[in-house]
Amino acid sequence: MKTITDDLDLIGANGRKASRKLSKLSGSTKDRALIRVADELKAREKEILSANVLDYDAGRRKGLQDSSLDRLLLTTERLETIAAGVRRIAAMPDPLAETFDARMLPNGLRAGKRRVPLGVIGAIYESRPNITVDIATLCLKSGNAVILRGGREAFNSNYALAGLIRDSVAAAGMPEDAVQFVSSTDRSLVGKLLKMKDFIDLIIPRGGAELVRRVASEATMPAITGGVGVCHTYIDSRADVEMAVAIVHNAKVSRPYVCNALDTVLVHSKIAPTYLPRLATEWAKADVEMHCDRRAISILGQSKGLNVTSATDEDWGKEFLSLTAAIKIVDSMDEALYHITNYGSGHTEAIVTEDYSAAERFLDEVDSGVVLVNASTRFNDGGQFGLGAEVAISTNKMHARGPIGLKELTSYKWTVRGTGQVRD
Amino acid sequence: MKTITDDLDLIGANGRKASRKLSKLSGSTKDRALIRVADELKAREKEILSANVLDYDAGRRKGLQDSSLDRLLLTTERLETIAAGVRRIAAMPDPLAETFDARMLPNGLRAGKRRVPLGVIGAIYESRPNITVDIATLCLKSGNAVILRGGREAFNSNYALAGLIRDSVAAAGMPEDAVQFVSSTDRSLVGKLLKMKDFIDLIIPRGGAELVRRVASEATMPAITGGVGVCHTYIDSRADVEMAVAIVHNAKVSRPYVCNALDTVLVHSKIAPTYLPRLATEWAKADVEMHCDRRAISILGQSKGLNVTSATDEDWGKEFLSLTAAIKIVDSMDEALYHITNYGSGHTEAIVTEDYSAAERFLDEVDSGVVLVNASTRFNDGGQFGLGAEVAISTNKMHARGPIGLKELTSYKWTVRGTGQVRD
Repeated sequence: MKTITDDLDLIGANGRKASRKLSKLSGSTKDRALIRVADELKAREKEILSANVLDYDAGRRKGLQDSSLDRLLLTTERLETIAAGVRRIAAMPDPLAETFDARMLPNGLRAGKRRVPLGVIGAIYESRPNITVDIATLCLKSGNAVILRGGREAFNSNYALAGLIRDSVAAAGMPEDAVQFVSSTDRSLVGKLLKMKDFIDLIIPRGGAELVRRVASEATMPAITGGVGVCHTYIDSRADVEMAVAIVHNAKVSRPYVCNALDTVLVHSKIAPTYLPRLATEWAKADVEMHCDRRAISILGQSKGLNVTSATDEDWGKEFLSLTAAIKIVDSMDEALYHITNYGSGHTEAIVTEDYSAAERFLDEVDSGVVLVNASTRFNDGGQFGLGAEVAISTNKMHARGPIGLKELTSYKWTVRGTGQVRD
Repeated sequence: MKTITDDLDLIGANGRKASRKLSKLSGSTKDRALIRVADELKAREKEILSANVLDYDAGRRKGLQDSSLDRLLLTTERLETIAAGVRRIAAMPDPLAETFDARMLPNGLRAGKRRVPLGVIGAIYESRPNITVDIATLCLKSGNAVILRGGREAFNSNYALAGLIRDSVAAAGMPEDAVQFVSSTDRSLVGKLLKMKDFIDLIIPRGGAELVRRVASEATMPAITGGVGVCHTYIDSRADVEMAVAIVHNAKVSRPYVCNALDTVLVHSKIAPTYLPRLATEWAKADVEMHCDRRAISILGQSKGLNVTSATDEDWGKEFLSLTAAIKIVDSMDEALYHITNYGSGHTEAIVTEDYSAAERFLDEVDSGVVLVNASTRFNDGGQFGLGAEVAISTNKMHARGPIGLKELTSYKWTVRGTGQVRD
């Protein structure tokens, strides 16, 4: 790999230049680069794993938690999974091969919207090194140049992966500056990146609430903010109890530290006496802590061996990111909707019900990126929705909402073909 | 009309409340309100025109230019035109009546994107009172609440029109706070509006470059910036000369003070000796001032009676908003594209050519909101493109580009219908 610089002005100018070249390349050229990335992840496995060992050992010495160390870790199998993901993206249709809203105007002008890349995308992310590959390959496939700024814990792994991607990009005849990696982990560089609106068209933070807040408040260019998911599931009076237990259990337990994990269960008072003890029994086995409102406590209070405590005001609207959930009893869907409006983050909300009208009303009235009936909130995911993968999950209403996949990384331009038309 | 307040916190809260109600209303209810607005523009004509007389007289006393006075003026005919525009918007399909990207996932989940309003839209605009009606009706039709802040020159007219719209909205059974009007013309209120990101989801500036720049730099919520159009037309070596004269003439002269008016003509050196004298003759009749580069001067210099002066560096990339254009001779399309990339504002660019490959290359490589072949730049317009009307023309690449009509004032949410699915 050619020297990676940490001169942000140079990085910005290089990114802009590369993005202009990228926008002229065919889909097959870009796919060739992606397949090369996947091949090299196998061919250069030793190099990547050695770099990762440096990060992992440093993390252990620094006393990182087991969960953080696990997120940092790369193995042969994990590299294979990452490579398979890259091949899947390469195999997807070219998001730029689309003209839409085409029309012939009364004066004979033929107008339509042609999909184009956004330009240069900046990504600021935390510890997981697979994000380097995920974001870089989604950006390349959608014709965007990308400037990556990974977390310091994964520095050696990210540096090695970014180098591998740049080499693969160059080998496919593309400008290697299509993918740039900021090689300094100096935190003040983030502040500077957020001011580079002339060079960066969109900034994507991938990390905790603190990073997302910082980007939302400091970025001078558009940002995809999201990531913070305070996810509710409402158990309607006419829910199938077993289904509601399975869905809520899955939404909380399958991966508690991600943004689409469930945080609050709203239970209709009519079904609560049947439902809550079933859920609590299930969750006692899975070590889920239940922060219950007064009425839920009064239903569950008698039972032994449950992990139940009283909810405080802070539990409503909290993203737990752990095996904890808040439980509240409501007397109507109105009350559930009111709670969601007031405490939700607009990320993911679900209802469990066999009542047709209740399901439709929930879909109509809940204003979140993803609204589900009889399914786990964990499905708010680009891969699950068939988008290939995602660079983030947006709770913004502008541009794109929910998972940000290939299409969401594009803009469009109107093209108009005339034969000499002038306007009256 | 009920009292219009200038307490921005109250306005913000009212807007949010109204937007929640609006999002549940049917398309026919909203259309009823719009038709009522059109009817009332006739029924309350005297009231509106009297208010307008106050503004017009005050403007005259203040010494406003004729063009500004003309923009301020309302007449019976102009009110009829405005009302016809409102009826046309009412007759358009409901932009919210759409689910798209629908799919059945392998696990049986049925997912799709349902179009939803953005929420509350803020509009800050300058003197033309018809903008009050245009923006309010487009926002209503798309299910958005709107907070209007018009310019002080048109205050009485805007106040009367906003009142008429609020009354019509209420008469149709909708929350009248769907349309709010800031009744103070205190300039510091604009600064406060731009900080109200909890209440305003999108801010739209409609006015000069200074307003647009202020909004772009101060707004804490997403903003549609644009409006500033440095529009180029490239006359290729294989252009039809007569067509090229007609298109360039129309692009400059039909309405010189709007954003899609032509600013710079780039002429291929092979066609310049034929083309430029023809254009200059036409423009001498229309009093268009030509700021020419050295080579263009050397072609035109001999001719008498032409309005030709030497271009300075400041002419490139300048939005003239007057009967002035910059003229530059280029030796290749590469040079034209380079000039457009460096000096354009990404608004509207056109090529005139009979060469198929040149046309396609121009469409491919120019990165502007609207790119035209053999047509006037003046066609970058929501009405012309069949969007009904527009609240603005965006040069942003995020969210929407080009004319912002009904669909561009919406977002979407994913709806997912399951039968108990959980994630592995």
